[in-house]
Amino acid sequence: MDGTAGGKGILHIFKLGGSLVEDEAVRRAFIAVLARTRRMALLVHGGGKAASEMSSRLGVPVQMREGRRITDAETLKIVTMVYAGWVNKSLVADLQAAGLDALGLTGADGNAIRAHKRRRGDIDYGFAGDIDEVNTALLRALIGSGLTPVIAPITHDGQGQLLNTNADTMAAETAAALAGEYRIRLCFLLDRPGVLADPGNPDSVIRRLTVGEIGDLHQRGVIADGMVPKLRNATRALEAGAEAVWLTDIYGLEDPAGRGTTLTLT
Amino acid sequence: MDGTAGGKGILHIFKLGGSLVEDEAVRRAFIAVLARTRRMALLVHGGGKAASEMSSRLGVPVQMREGRRITDAETLKIVTMVYAGWVNKSLVADLQAAGLDALGLTGADGNAIRAHKRRRGDIDYGFAGDIDEVNTALLRALIGSGLTPVIAPITHDGQGQLLNTNADTMAAETAAALAGEYRIRLCFLLDRPGVLADPGNPDSVIRRLTVGEIGDLHQRGVIADGMVPKLRNATRALEAGAEAVWLTDIYGLEDPAGRGTTLTLT
Repeated sequence: MDGTAGGKGILHIFKLGGSLVEDEAVRRAFIAVLARTRRMALLVHGGGKAASEMSSRLGVPVQMREGRRITDAETLKIVTMVYAGWVNKSLVADLQAAGLDALGLTGADGNAIRAHKRRRGDIDYGFAGDIDEVNTALLRALIGSGLTPVIAPITHDGQGQLLNTNADTMAAETAAALAGEYRIRLCFLLDRPGVLADPGNPDSVIRRLTVGEIGDLHQRGVIADGMVPKLRNATRALEAGAEAVWLTDIYGLEDPAGRGTTLTLT
Repeated sequence: MDGTAGGKGILHIFKLGGSLVEDEAVRRAFIAVLARTRRMALLVHGGGKAASEMSSRLGVPVQMREGRRITDAETLKIVTMVYAGWVNKSLVADLQAAGLDALGLTGADGNAIRAHKRRRGDIDYGFAGDIDEVNTALLRALIGSGLTPVIAPITHDGQGQLLNTNADTMAAETAAALAGEYRIRLCFLLDRPGVLADPGNPDSVIRRLTVGEIGDLHQRGVIADGMVPKLRNATRALEAGAEAVWLTDIYGLEDPAGRGTTLTLT
């Protein structure tokens, strides 16, 4: 798949994490730029901190393994309420107020993203989903009619079971699936300006990173555990034909290649 | 508007309340009939009991006035989580499992239903919405592409504010707005077989009720307070051109006129 083929429109896929979900001022700044630049866009958001806060208010223990949430039945209800309910609809209402015709979705809606319950080794992640298929016809139809899909990190298995699904993976798999339809520019919006060579120093952005360097940087301890799966997801999108993958903060929104980290295959 | 005009398709609008939302077995029975009859449908659901339970678990007082929930900021978050998150997505996943291509919406999504914050007399209902406009173009496009919209009772004001909105009113206003596009059959699904002449006797269904009789039955104490606003909403849909309005339980689903109450203008 040639991502630079003529005739295809550019679709920006933004993965919103951290303060973009939690902090209203940051979210509004992001939306203002998005509304001004009027890019064709699809958003995928997280909401882990808000979900953990709600778990704690409800007295439901938060259990994490290797950065992933163990999702028992009570936790599935909480993440569905928080991600697909409060976070998704607040974001959609804010986008609408800025003149962007947003429409919120989980993977269950219109069968947008189907997954299966994770079965992996000796850790039982509970109702956690690994993605099987993205419904590109649905997303293309929504985008084509001028809507901005806003996807919450919940999928379904087609048998009535909702599944908690990693938002980075959803963004990457959506980018991969839509690479045949659009020139995809996937941007992971972070709370820092890019991938940092020195985690304590925001001026140490690694401006250009190739897929082949990820393992080495990880082994040398330059990039931390949480960043590795994110970069693996980003790699997956590139390999499937995404034209560009960036990691930056909202100040890099208008020119991500000029501020953040650009990941390339070679 | 002639509801019986040739050429227009029949659209069933089902308002799901009570045990249809709360009880999984009842919900599955409903979905099984819907899947078997393969009607073109739009669903509107409530979820008040689940919202009150969540409020109580979170230590947020439930305040009702004249059957309506007083919606402070904390309560708005709770109803958005419960209605648009858990109830809506569980329903969508169950419909998908039955082969119905459901897509969940609030009024904010695609600007489906816009409202304003209620300003009425001396009661402050907080973030409660009164409907201004239904986006018929969006709903027609979704239904036309084979999707079953599933609407949660949350709207927005177009300025970024989500609003808690009565589900009966949403069903009636949606029916009224779509009456120009479809032959509308609006069915309020209840926990009893229809409007009862004797609340304690399920065999006392008033089979046929005209709009003009509502006031009299209310004054005579035959129909209770909760039923009156529901019948006023139903009246609004009829006046706007809905072809039929029924009130029944899931056993009346296949033949509502044969079991439940049929409301007519004259």
